Parts: sequence; C-alpha cells; structure tokens
Amino acid sequence: MANLGFVGLGIMGKPMAGNLLAAGHKVHVYDLLREPTKELATKGAVACSSSREVAQKSDIIFVIVQDTPDAEAVLFGKDGVAEGVRQGCVVVDMSSISPIATKEFARRLAALGVEMLDAPVSGGQVGAENASLSIMVGGQPGVFAQIKPYFELMGKNIVHVGGNGDGQTCKVANQIVVGLTIEAVAEALLFASKAGADPAKVREALLGGFAQSRILELHGERMLKRSFDPGFRIRLQQKDLNLALQAARSLGLSLPNTSTAQELFNAVAAEGGSDLDHSALVLALEKLANHRVSG
Amino acid sequence: MANLGFVGLGIMGKPMAGNLLAAGHKVHVYDLLREPTKELATKGAVACSSSREVAQKSDIIFVIVQDTPDAEAVLFGKDGVAEGVRQGCVVVDMSSISPIATKEFARRLAALGVEMLDAPVSGGQVGAENASLSIMVGGQPGVFAQIKPYFELMGKNIVHVGGNGDGQTCKVANQIVVGLTIEAVAEALLFASKAGADPAKVREALLGGFAQSRILELHGERMLKRSFDPGFRIRLQQKDLNLALQAARSLGLSLPNTSTAQELFNAVAAEGGSDLDHSALVLALEKLANHRVSG
Repeated sequence: MANLGFVGLGIMGKPMAGNLLAAGHKVHVYDLLREPTKELATKGAVACSSSREVAQKSDIIFVIVQDTPDAEAVLFGKDGVAEGVRQGCVVVDMSSISPIATKEFARRLAALGVEMLDAPVSGGQVGAENASLSIMVGGQPGVFAQIKPYFELMGKNIVHVGGNGDGQTCKVANQIVVGLTIEAVAEALLFASKAGADPAKVREALLGGFAQSRILELHGERMLKRSFDPGFRIRLQQKDLNLALQAARSLGLSLPNTSTAQELFNAVAAEGGSDLDHSALVLALEKLANHRVSG
Repeated sequence: MANLGFVGLGIMGKPMAGNLLAAGHKVHVYDLLREPTKELATKGAVACSSSREVAQKSDIIFVIVQDTPDAEAVLFGKDGVAEGVRQGCVVVDMSSISPIATKEFARRLAALGVEMLDAPVSGGQVGAENASLSIMVGGQPGVFAQIKPYFELMGKNIVHVGGNGDGQTCKVANQIVVGLTIEAVAEALLFASKAGADPAKVREALLGGFAQSRILELHGERMLKRSFDPGFRIRLQQKDLNLALQAARSLGLSLPNTSTAQELFNAVAAEGGSDLDHSALVLALEKLANHRVSG
C-alpha cells in the first residue's frame, strides 16, 4: 500500500486528509500550524516537521493551500517538497491556483522525474467533510487512473479535464460562471423589487424557464432571506476572480463582466463584507440603487 | 361562451390565436398584414378590419405585438381597442413591453371600466405552436382566475406574479438573467479554450456543480457547436435588455452587467448578426480575444 503525504491542513485539507486516514491509509501530514497536525496524529497520521519530510516519506503527496505563492513555497521553497521527493512519486496539488503557474510547476517537477496532477475542488468545507467534493483534474491519463481511487475517498463528481493545468483552468471557468450568475440574479431580483414586484414570486416564475440555475435557486433564496453567513466567502471568490483576470491579461482575453463582478465584490469587502457569503454581492448593487431586494 | 378577440398575428400571435380556435372558441382577429388574418379566417376565425372592430365584437381581447409603441397604438391609437371596447371587458396584453408603460395602460383602461392583464410569454415560436409557453401574469387575482382557462390553451407554466405591470417586470427580470448567464458562459468557455483546455470537457464538468444552468446546458452547447440559427434572435434580446436599461434609468437603478451585455449584443448586431441566436453573443468576446471557443 502506498505511503501518502498531505500538506496543508486547513478548513479543507484537515477533513480531506482525515478521509484518507479513515479509509485505512498511512498518511504523513504537515501544516505551518501545529494544532491540526497534532489533531490528525491522534487519529493515526504521522506528524512531520516540514513539506520536505512529508515528501521523503511518501509516494503520493497531496497539497492543498490558499494561493499560488503558498503552493510554490510548499513545492519549491526551503524545506519544500522538491527537496525531499523521489523520482517516480506523484504530487497532487488540490489548491485553487493559477493555471499558468501550474503548468510551470508541472514542468519543474517533471524535470525531477516526478509526475504532477492539478486537482482543485469545489463543494467547500461541507463537501470536504462529507467526501462529496467536485474534483477537476489536469494531468496525464495514466497518473489520473493511479490517483483516482484516492480522489474517490474525498469527492464524488471527479472529472479528468485534460493535461497539466486544465483542472485549474476548469476551476477558474467554474468560478467565472458562479460569480457572474450571482451577479445576474442580483441585477434581476433588484430590478424586480425596485419596479414594485414581489422578488420571491419572480424567482419562482424564473425557475420554470430558461433562466433556471442552481445559483437562482440557492443564492437567489439567500438574497431574499438576507442569509449571508457563508457558504463560500467573498474573499475566496475575489481570489478566484483575480486568478481569472490575471490569466486573462496574460492570455490576451477580455472578460468584461468578470471584471465588473470583481469590482462589486471589492465594494462589499470595502464595507467589511469579506467573510460574507458570495451571494452578498447584491449588497453593492443595493447600495448603488438605494433599495433592498427584500426585508 | 365568451367572444374572444386577438390582435397581432405574427410569429407568436398566429399560432396562439390558432390554439384558441382549435379549442372551439369564437375568435375575432386582426393584424396590420392581411395574410395571417385571411389564413386564420379559413380556420374559422372572424376577420376584422381594425383593432376597434375586434374590441367591439369581443368580451376578452388578447394582444401580442412587438414593442411598447405598437401596443400603445393598438390600444389607444386611431381605430384602436379603446375606441371599441365596452365596460366589463378584459384586455390581455401578451406583448413583452415596458412595465412602466403597462401600469399606465392599465390605468387608462380602468378609466373606461375595462380590466387589463399583462401576460408576456417566453418559449418562442415552438412554445407558441405547442401551447407550451411560460406566461407571466400581472393584474387583479379575480381577472387572472377568469382568464386562466384561456392561458392554459396557449401555455403550460402560468404564474400570477402580482398586480398590473408585474408580469412585464418578471419578463424583463427573466431576460436579464438569460442575457447575463449567456454572457457568463461565453466568458468562461472562451477563457477555458484560450487557456488551452477542451471547452466541451469544461462545460461537462461545470454542469455537475454550482455553475449548472439551463443556459450552460443549451446555449453552452450552441457555442461549442457554432449553432447560431435562432432560437431566440439577438434583436429581440436587445429589445428586452433595452426595456431593462430604460426602466432602470427611470427607477434609479444601476445594472452594470446588463449594460455591458447589451453592448456585446450591439457589437454582434453591428457585424450583421441581429438575426442570430442570442448565444452568438460569444462572437463579440471572441473578436476581442482574437480566438474562437471551438471549431
């Protein structure tokens, strides 16, 4: 049985590593914080003192950290994975980071004889705990086939999108659609409300036709009920749209509505709303209109 | 049995009036064009020579024309409905027009002792032919109850949204969500494609999560297959977003992404694309990026 490694034991990583442990695997774990490392050790994980040590002791090294520079530090920084990893091992980066940087990371690892998959997830903390995450994977088909049984311990909707970086590209595309559909629903419900109609009735009517979406269903209801506890935090949505806008600039691509949606998220953040659910984007439009969708 | 009237026998009105006829109702019809009037007369309709004549002979007068000025002309212009209508009759405007003008029309008809419903539809020509339209209705509950059996001969998803104008408001909100979700899907698939991923795989992966929508399913596929025959024409989407933007200005409301989406539809129209399906909005983004989603 393969020795597993897991670096990054935050809100997502800790339950994900926990699901690998619960399936009976030997998991070597490390995080900058001691607390989650200790907690997993009480459940049978092997506590390590660096990403390098995790890499030295593991055949497959899972990583899930916040942003591109964090992933780069874990992989290629001092005491990082690259210092400890052996030829033939596999690195699986489950962070949501830049697709462009990811391709570069894969090339650098390949030069060490190490395969990499990018495998960002969606589904949040609840999905991590229930092992019901969506996992979007980029990398070689053979490596995907090798790692798939482990993905199945952490998620449900597991799609092999394409080569290195394509998992991250898919995640960014997902976040563009999510952010912009939230914005669309916010404009529509605010319009309806300001024009004097009952936005709850309008949402109901729209769910029956071409305007149907999971966002209209779930986030539309949040806007009506003023239920902005996360869910998915605005600061994470901002991070993902920033990945979209940065990549778009370097690819030579214009994303006009992604850009405006990001500005609206920025406006909500400016009022202290960074930790509200992303459906709270509606607050920025409401302020511009001096009118609330409801309540 | 009530005498019915039907003014406006275009792509939508002709099959809708045909469905009322097919159910055995007596229908008095009029259109500016002679051809569809004659055609319905061969199926048993009573051909009239003006909207006034239709109103004189009918208890319930259905209207479906292109835009706000057309509806105003039919209702209140020379030889219009208001010149012929009797107290106690009902006018049902199934056009998609300004919610604000609609409230004014309802007041003017009420002054003549005539009730009005606004009842715009979605579902297009196919929905009109198959009697499977979505119908969004504004007006008094008692009047809605009286007219509902006729709506059921023309549509399926029939929602009483609220008072006069609220049906139109709901339709505009619907078109905001539809237009902006098309734009969202276009940005996401173009991003994925330009970043080197397979946009078909990305669409498939996204359909399994929060990014799911009917637009991603249907219009996303159109973008991938370059299948831009309408469907719903860009010039009609432009008309509907114009209703949104005009009403927003007079209500004091900012709709930033509706405004940008309209500009992108304008750009496609400028290249001769007015009669393409609204999913062809992607062509404007593709031109900006010098890259095609597929094909």
